Amino acid sequence: MSDDIDKVTKRHDSGLVMVLTGDGKGKTTSALGQALRAVGHGFKVYMIQFMKGRKYGEVIAAEKHLPDLIVEQFGLDSFVMRNNPAPVDIELAQEGLKRAQEIIASSAYDMVILDEINVAIDFKLISLDEVLNLIKNKPLELNLILTGRYAPPEIVEIADMVSEVKEIKHHYASGIKDQAGIEF
Amino acid sequence: MSDDIDKVTKRHDSGLVMVLTGDGKGKTTSALGQALRAVGHGFKVYMIQFMKGRKYGEVIAAEKHLPDLIVEQFGLDSFVMRNNPAPVDIELAQEGLKRAQEIIASSAYDMVILDEINVAIDFKLISLDEVLNLIKNKPLELNLILTGRYAPPEIVEIADMVSEVKEIKHHYASGIKDQAGIEF
Repeated sequence: MSDDIDKVTKRHDSGLVMVLTGDGKGKTTSALGQALRAVGHGFKVYMIQFMKGRKYGEVIAAEKHLPDLIVEQFGLDSFVMRNNPAPVDIELAQEGLKRAQEIIASSAYDMVILDEINVAIDFKLISLDEVLNLIKNKPLELNLILTGRYAPPEIVEIADMVSEVKEIKHHYASGIKDQAGIEF
Repeated sequence: MSDDIDKVTKRHDSGLVMVLTGDGKGKTTSALGQALRAVGHGFKVYMIQFMKGRKYGEVIAAEKHLPDLIVEQFGLDSFVMRNNPAPVDIELAQEGLKRAQEIIASSAYDMVILDEINVAIDFKLISLDEVLNLIKNKPLELNLILTGRYAPPEIVEIADMVSEVKEIKHHYASGIKDQAGIEF
């Protein structure tokens, strides 16, 4: 058996690191759909949402219908200023990272989704090094999904799968505002 | 009030036509996540999967946990040959289109997802004109999502939102095969 085959076999047994980035609509929803698909096959899934505090439809649906999908939010229902985040924004993102570390170390979940974590890094709410350590030290079997625009090249480098969601057109440009069931 | 404002108001009251295309992983899952979010806000959602017959996790999860999300498949658990589809592939896709027409005309759903329909058009299993008619004549309030690579420019033109999911890297390239909970 060649080294190559050994390597493939090893990777096949392990969970994947998947990144959803880019400026288009469909990153968080893609992670959620992945979660729903996984739950159908008996996976236990934990999603941590950074920089979000609004009562998103996925939070409601998971609480009501999906015992194997937990969605926990670490943020406020307001925008974070990229160049001037409030102390509370930093504090909540740090708490989210701490929870992510605990959840991942617990090995109690088959899939962990760190939603908008790329943005939290880009906004300097949490440190890239800590997230890289989290990825590198994850339990072998765990599937880990990271979402958000501005995925750092260091994360893209160590990921197994990276999709960039590009905005071709968006209804915001026609003046259509955020709607329940669509944006949140 | 200007014509522009009239137009925006009208569009805002109506459901959106959203397209998820491109060669990367995350189109069907994005539509599914959108469905989950919508269900959280009380939407009724119907997903028609073209060219798919495998027991996907989303089919199992929806049947078991989500009474307001119906996933119906019109395809076999085998690949369709692009240049030489079997008669049964065409027949099933035509049935899927017919069901889509009925479901959309019924106005019983707030969101309808036509999964992989772009590919069914590209493979000439169904006609572009019929799909364009379906979109143009949809009930005003209905949110309609079309997924699959090769979205025809005529559909992109009339859509409100279009995201292209681009493959930056994929674990298939490392020899990792389809896995339950990830690809299906």
